[in-house]
Amino acid sequence: MSHEIKSAPVLWTGDHYNEGIGRDDIFDKLREECGVFGVFGHPDAAGLSYYGLHALQHRGEESAGICTADSKDSGKFNYYRGMGLVKEVFTKDQLELLSGDRSIGHVRYSTAGESRLSNAQPLIFRYRDGDLAVATNGNIVNAPEIRRELEMSGSIFQTSSDTEVIAHLIARSSKDFVTAAKEALQRIVGGFAFLIMTNDKLLVASDPHGLRPLAMGRLGDSYVFSSETCAFETIGAEYVRDVQPGELLILDDSGLQIERYATIERRATCAMEYIYFARPDSDINGINIHSARKRMGQQLAIESFMDADIVTGVPDSSISAAIGYAEQTGIPYELGLIKNKYTGRTFIQPSQELREKGVKMKLSAVRKVVEGKRVVMIDDSIVRGTTSRRIVNLLREAGATEVHVRITSPPFKNPCYYGIDTPDRKELIASYRTIEEIRKEINADSLAFLSDNGFVDSVGGNEGAYNRGMCLACFDNDYPTPVNEESEKSCSC
Amino acid sequence: MSHEIKSAPVLWTGDHYNEGIGRDDIFDKLREECGVFGVFGHPDAAGLSYYGLHALQHRGEESAGICTADSKDSGKFNYYRGMGLVKEVFTKDQLELLSGDRSIGHVRYSTAGESRLSNAQPLIFRYRDGDLAVATNGNIVNAPEIRRELEMSGSIFQTSSDTEVIAHLIARSSKDFVTAAKEALQRIVGGFAFLIMTNDKLLVASDPHGLRPLAMGRLGDSYVFSSETCAFETIGAEYVRDVQPGELLILDDSGLQIERYATIERRATCAMEYIYFARPDSDINGINIHSARKRMGQQLAIESFMDADIVTGVPDSSISAAIGYAEQTGIPYELGLIKNKYTGRTFIQPSQELREKGVKMKLSAVRKVVEGKRVVMIDDSIVRGTTSRRIVNLLREAGATEVHVRITSPPFKNPCYYGIDTPDRKELIASYRTIEEIRKEINADSLAFLSDNGFVDSVGGNEGAYNRGMCLACFDNDYPTPVNEESEKSCSC
Amino acid sequence: MSHEIKSAPVLWTGDHYNEGIGRDDIFDKLREECGVFGVFGHPDAAGLSYYGLHALQHRGEESAGICTADSKDSGKFNYYRGMGLVKEVFTKDQLELLSGDRSIGHVRYSTAGESRLSNAQPLIFRYRDGDLAVATNGNIVNAPEIRRELEMSGSIFQTSSDTEVIAHLIARSSKDFVTAAKEALQRIVGGFAFLIMTNDKLLVASDPHGLRPLAMGRLGDSYVFSSETCAFETIGAEYVRDVQPGELLILDDSGLQIERYATIERRATCAMEYIYFARPDSDINGINIHSARKRMGQQLAIESFMDADIVTGVPDSSISAAIGYAEQTGIPYELGLIKNKYTGRTFIQPSQELREKGVKMKLSAVRKVVEGKRVVMIDDSIVRGTTSRRIVNLLREAGATEVHVRITSPPFKNPCYYGIDTPDRKELIASYRTIEEIRKEINADSLAFLSDNGFVDSVGGNEGAYNRGMCLACFDNDYPTPVNEESEKSCSC
Amino acid sequence: MSHEIKSAPVLWTGDHYNEGIGRDDIFDKLREECGVFGVFGHPDAAGLSYYGLHALQHRGEESAGICTADSKDSGKFNYYRGMGLVKEVFTKDQLELLSGDRSIGHVRYSTAGESRLSNAQPLIFRYRDGDLAVATNGNIVNAPEIRRELEMSGSIFQTSSDTEVIAHLIARSSKDFVTAAKEALQRIVGGFAFLIMTNDKLLVASDPHGLRPLAMGRLGDSYVFSSETCAFETIGAEYVRDVQPGELLILDDSGLQIERYATIERRATCAMEYIYFARPDSDINGINIHSARKRMGQQLAIESFMDADIVTGVPDSSISAAIGYAEQTGIPYELGLIKNKYTGRTFIQPSQELREKGVKMKLSAVRKVVEGKRVVMIDDSIVRGTTSRRIVNLLREAGATEVHVRITSPPFKNPCYYGIDTPDRKELIASYRTIEEIRKEINADSLAFLSDNGFVDSVGGNEGAYNRGMCLACFDNDYPTPVNEESEKSCSC
Repeated sequence: MSHEIKSAPVLWTGDHYNEGIGRDDIFDKLREECGVFGVFGHPDAAGLSYYGLHALQHRGEESAGICTADSKDSGKFNYYRGMGLVKEVFTKDQLELLSGDRSIGHVRYSTAGESRLSNAQPLIFRYRDGDLAVATNGNIVNAPEIRRELEMSGSIFQTSSDTEVIAHLIARSSKDFVTAAKEALQRIVGGFAFLIMTNDKLLVASDPHGLRPLAMGRLGDSYVFSSETCAFETIGAEYVRDVQPGELLILDDSGLQIERYATIERRATCAMEYIYFARPDSDINGINIHSARKRMGQQLAIESFMDADIVTGVPDSSISAAIGYAEQTGIPYELGLIKNKYTGRTFIQPSQELREKGVKMKLSAVRKVVEGKRVVMIDDSIVRGTTSRRIVNLLREAGATEVHVRITSPPFKNPCYYGIDTPDRKELIASYRTIEEIRKEINADSLAFLSDNGFVDSVGGNEGAYNRGMCLACFDNDYPTPVNEESEKSCSC
Repeated sequence: MSHEIKSAPVLWTGDHYNEGIGRDDIFDKLREECGVFGVFGHPDAAGLSYYGLHALQHRGEESAGICTADSKDSGKFNYYRGMGLVKEVFTKDQLELLSGDRSIGHVRYSTAGESRLSNAQPLIFRYRDGDLAVATNGNIVNAPEIRRELEMSGSIFQTSSDTEVIAHLIARSSKDFVTAAKEALQRIVGGFAFLIMTNDKLLVASDPHGLRPLAMGRLGDSYVFSSETCAFETIGAEYVRDVQPGELLILDDSGLQIERYATIERRATCAMEYIYFARPDSDINGINIHSARKRMGQQLAIESFMDADIVTGVPDSSISAAIGYAEQTGIPYELGLIKNKYTGRTFIQPSQELREKGVKMKLSAVRKVVEGKRVVMIDDSIVRGTTSRRIVNLLREAGATEVHVRITSPPFKNPCYYGIDTPDRKELIASYRTIEEIRKEINADSLAFLSDNGFVDSVGGNEGAYNRGMCLACFDNDYPTPVNEESEKSCSC
Repeated sequence: MSHEIKSAPVLWTGDHYNEGIGRDDIFDKLREECGVFGVFGHPDAAGLSYYGLHALQHRGEESAGICTADSKDSGKFNYYRGMGLVKEVFTKDQLELLSGDRSIGHVRYSTAGESRLSNAQPLIFRYRDGDLAVATNGNIVNAPEIRRELEMSGSIFQTSSDTEVIAHLIARSSKDFVTAAKEALQRIVGGFAFLIMTNDKLLVASDPHGLRPLAMGRLGDSYVFSSETCAFETIGAEYVRDVQPGELLILDDSGLQIERYATIERRATCAMEYIYFARPDSDINGINIHSARKRMGQQLAIESFMDADIVTGVPDSSISAAIGYAEQTGIPYELGLIKNKYTGRTFIQPSQELREKGVKMKLSAVRKVVEGKRVVMIDDSIVRGTTSRRIVNLLREAGATEVHVRITSPPFKNPCYYGIDTPDRKELIASYRTIEEIRKEINADSLAFLSDNGFVDSVGGNEGAYNRGMCLACFDNDYPTPVNEESEKSCSC
Repeated sequence: MSHEIKSAPVLWTGDHYNEGIGRDDIFDKLREECGVFGVFGHPDAAGLSYYGLHALQHRGEESAGICTADSKDSGKFNYYRGMGLVKEVFTKDQLELLSGDRSIGHVRYSTAGESRLSNAQPLIFRYRDGDLAVATNGNIVNAPEIRRELEMSGSIFQTSSDTEVIAHLIARSSKDFVTAAKEALQRIVGGFAFLIMTNDKLLVASDPHGLRPLAMGRLGDSYVFSSETCAFETIGAEYVRDVQPGELLILDDSGLQIERYATIERRATCAMEYIYFARPDSDINGINIHSARKRMGQQLAIESFMDADIVTGVPDSSISAAIGYAEQTGIPYELGLIKNKYTGRTFIQPSQELREKGVKMKLSAVRKVVEGKRVVMIDDSIVRGTTSRRIVNLLREAGATEVHVRITSPPFKNPCYYGIDTPDRKELIASYRTIEEIRKEINADSLAFLSDNGFVDSVGGNEGAYNRGMCLACFDNDYPTPVNEESEKSCSC
């Protein structure tokens, strides 16, 4: 076991609610693990990547990196990676040094205690045929097994990222690069979006079930690829289509070639992207996230209506749903909870005394709005329950007479193996408590989750498809790939 | 003329909309100038100030500072000031060095080209009777005149801040400190909230018309003072009441004493605090900001209804009003515009080419939401008109078929002399264009402003009071104090 | 009392010997307080100042600052100051913003516990007639008295630097600027070199006894001024002459005018400049420092010869003298002690355990060189004696059989009032111990100091002048100005 | 080809003389490439490494790193690496996180344009049997060949450091770890000092000819290893002996075991370590560097005596030799040249105009000392000749009437393959010019190099050994290992 000390000691890593201090409290929120962004054929590939990654920042606040290849200079690589937000990692000078017309970029979330610069992506390798850069979002379920096998035959690893596995598999093959990449993709099991760049090619791949989102766009004559479509709007590019499950796109001087490396499986896009992770202005599989969330709120109002004086949403992810609930019911939507937008990494944690006195760094209830009111509070999910209890209590302390919690997803009962950082099953409150027990634990007057069907209908999606093309394993335990006790759970990036 | 070079070159100072590059574009938004926060009688005064100032961060992102006085150590001052956000300026170590049970703190906005560490507040002086620290929000209209007079009698100034004026006036008086402070306050004309600290006293004062907000709270046995009440919720303090116009509060070992230094004048709280500056969870004069804004949206729906497919608000300040308009009309509120929450200072500006290609760093329209729709777009004000035109065009480019602009305030025609950074009158579009001309200029299908009466009624406030206790000079040219051509316009802090 | 928290916590501030940890140990070395550098009439005044201050860096490592005036822009001031070395404080971008053809610059030493950015010079003031910048080296003995007087008549102070006093005196005068400056200089007592700049003038002044060094040079048509001549060689300027005691040089568009503000007094240049502070390649009053130190070593060999196997000097200041001793005696000069050139501020202090085990951060004895040898060790002074004892012990632990200490100055018995940071008289070991007692305390086999006459002859200087033009007050208690119990001792800068 | 952008743009990388701007000028000095430091069995291994590496800082100023293994925690690795000086890279907090009783550390020089954080050592790998950390000083001559071979069999490389080669060779072996390491060491050809750490072992190896220095010391019960003995004095450790050519030391829980992996070859320690690289207080093969250099100066006085008024040495490396020359001849040693000790990385380069005017950032002649004097100037080597010409001219401009250059080494004619960064043979002035031609080119009145025999005798060393145990290939083209046209020349670290 080795452990790289991170450069800046993090004073406060709680990305969500203010009262949480211990690890359990801080991480009582699901955590997305990465975003990827690629460019092919634009003279300022690094500049586009900078703004594109900035639009994907919510998918990873810990590290950022860009690697360019310059087709005018034999595909020479230039790269820079660092800890922090996109705007913190790159200076103007550095960006200008990243010359090239092709690039892959990455933003990465931290997993507790594994914050390492050497894990920052894109990972860069030198192999037989030249340079290789890889950026990933997602997780390789069978990585431990492949890694062990590679180590036994003499491979060395320099990062704890499973992304290194794919580079080894490609380098060890005696086939041509594209064939080697295809075989490597066939060997791995999981949910992932891959951008792989060599001195003359850019490869783009999605796992056989399309678990992680990945879209293709155009900007003039150049192609762009992004974990979410919101980045296209930011850079002025046009959305073309989503990269399909099992597809392998190959871009080089001869243009774009679309192949498949896997047979057609059922599409199983991660449900939590719709519920929580993706930006509301992104579209996945043609469905706008804000609109889907608003429909979830409307559906909640239909399934488990509760009369109240006001509806409020937990910012930022549940605002759309709260407005949906309000529109459906006619109960006014109000700003009952507010988030301080300046809070972020490196915040000084309040002393024990100040915390006990009620210092709140991130989220506050708005007394004037909730005092004496019956409140419907919309949230996206309940993981361990600690966060929900705190928010309910914030509202009560601010004078709410009743707090009715409505959740825009079914109960979260099963861990994710495809790139979402979730606690073990035994820590997921819905896996061992009834809804009434949860209600008590979070101190709510009433509690309802969205039904499986209600959720699936709210998102919409391809009418006839199984689960409308979504993976609901965290709700229904029906995983689209084999998983077992020893499967890698934390993400590969 | 002297000019201190700022420590870090700012790459991007546009706080609002992404396409603006030139000075005019960047500053086509009114700019608040400061926030103040004070503590009296709490063992961790610096810690409270840190979280309190964090809650006031939106009032000033350029510099932050805290000065404590330690009553156990003869009132010894400890202070630290720096450029940047509260969380960037202070480290844990520094905060711990700021021992003391009394403190005043400050956050400050930059005015173009005058970004100076030596202007960072609180300003600290040594005078005859010991140490003096001053933190201000607002502007002293007659500062140039007093400054000239002081210079003629041999005073030297080390900052360009007019706050230095008050320290000179106090130091030059031969009276006791409180009397000297009263006389100094009587000598100055303007709109301001003052926190003044000596080794044994804390003075709190609001200008004779209460132009700038300032509230008093309690936390256990200690008193806290803040530009906005949202900071009280953050630190777990209880709101007591607003500091009244013309009041001077004196806190020392003998407790709190409330005096007046000015006769009772009409209250004239800045209208733009309700419309744009204050955080929606703050209350001013007992009126919640979010609720007031929602009523402005409702009133707009009544005064200038326009049917449409969706209502959207320009984030963040116009979301509440947009929801109000939607509730009043039944037209669904949608997320037609979205702001990237990670944008801030020190962002790399896109190249000319990328800008022309449409790179947007801050604000995007959500194509899927607005495409093919008739949109009512709610915004808070129109200053020069350039920003409004850009946002309208963003919506059109994303496919909106009609864009109807509704403004939650009357036309902004006159410059502010009380702490808001406004362009000259001749640059205020409403001062030289008719509404129809503005509509054309911003490329809207229709445009309406809230009426003066409609606005005043939306805010509410004390029924019989003139203008309901607000200063509307920017709309109606009726300034509560004398102003003339040579009056200082930019803020004192 | 107020205390500004310094921006970066200093991990290790010991500028000299490695074993010292407590305050007494760290400061068992005299500390120079400042260096000044001025330019008049060069298009890149800031650039010259940067390299000039870099050459004066040994006179002050804590903060650096440059203020320029641009005669093409009505004498507009541009300035930048920061904590750290010259090369750390200024970036290329900042330097380029400091346009102007006139400038004054400053480097400053820290005094314990008073490390403050607001004390960084040049200090900048705005007064009746425009801008005023002041940079000083030295100390104003009667500053407390003048400061009290100014405060009583209503002045406020923003720094703890006495340099502020001179600005107040000038601003309060009703005379023209030059007359006001002259009268201010007449009012103050002490040892100082002043650079004072307004929008149209540069004033250069030395105290009536010339206690602190200050030289004038030329570079093409421009004038340059520097605390030491080494800076002239660095920037390629030609040395003209030293600024004479009591002189006031006035530079403006009409050229250079030399006046006197004080009657002619005996010259009394600080002896410690020759012994310890100045760079060996500087000349003061026409005397090269390296050569003077070599003569001190030769004189020591004559006055108190001791046979030995090797001679070694305590780096850096005593190397020249050690070579002199070696040349005079024929005993080989050897590198018996070596200093790690990378040690500086912000070094991590070793743990108690490592210190006990003998970790040395700065100075080591060279075992192979000293083992089994009789060593003559040359040092420049003994302040408290703790440092000398440590170095003697370093040599013994490395195997020296005898250690004979020879000091290139007479015993240091009296505190300085003219800009050198010295401990109180009662802490100066030579003031309360005999030479034999000191020898025992520092664990030397023999100890000798240079005689007063021997020292004066070694330096040389103007034959007939009293003390050859030097202040020897620290040795003989004969202060050139009145001093009393309440005199300000620490430096003004 | 890939290129990692370095984090901070370097403003000035000239480590030596001030006038050089272009790459050739900046690099007209040989450059050592690395220093290594290891600890086995001390509870504060990281702390010792910090101070040890600090003592080796002159061997590498670009990056620093420490990896510890904690025997109480199954040998768990903790590591941190960064760009900059030791004191810049590590904070107290980070150092405390590096728990463990075993460690290897590294300081690294930059090679132009290849400044990469990912090359910072120790390199850390995960392989079949656990973790592996490697730190090297030196160069593997046949690395390109081995690398190609490894790539062809599927290996990927993540750094441009040849140190990665050794890790691959070990990981690919099917033998036990020690055997695998031995075989890997047998496979590589070159000059190197290796520290290799696993979770339970520390391996220490020197190449078969002992080209790079490496010494063993003891501190209580623990072992320490260092590129130079000066680090032992710094941490209070006792020197034991040099690691012998071809030795492999194995340290684990069962203690220290000394083996050989190569047959006994002639010892061939790099001559330039004695002449230029090593610190004067270090001993190599029992010979003190200062003393050896002094003897070189004495020998020069014997071989090529020139009468003069003063002798001066080019700081820092030639001071000892200049004193030797002075002692031998009776000509006084004087400080004719002085180096500014504050110059370092990140210095702002003077503008073209200032350079032409003679701004000197690093080295100055001391006019008062050299004016009107005949000067013997001692330097250590002449590479391209540009630097020597500049220094001669500095002395002439300062008024020297004659400048006689004496070099403490034979003419440098052949590139190094063992870890010293040298230009190509065709750029080495001594390879294509006669001594008289060089004299003219450097503008000296006379020029002499030390003879091969004179040099060898000055160093001393084992009487009967070939070349007294030194590699003189750079002078006599007699390389101790095979080298060919394609051999890797730049260092492996």
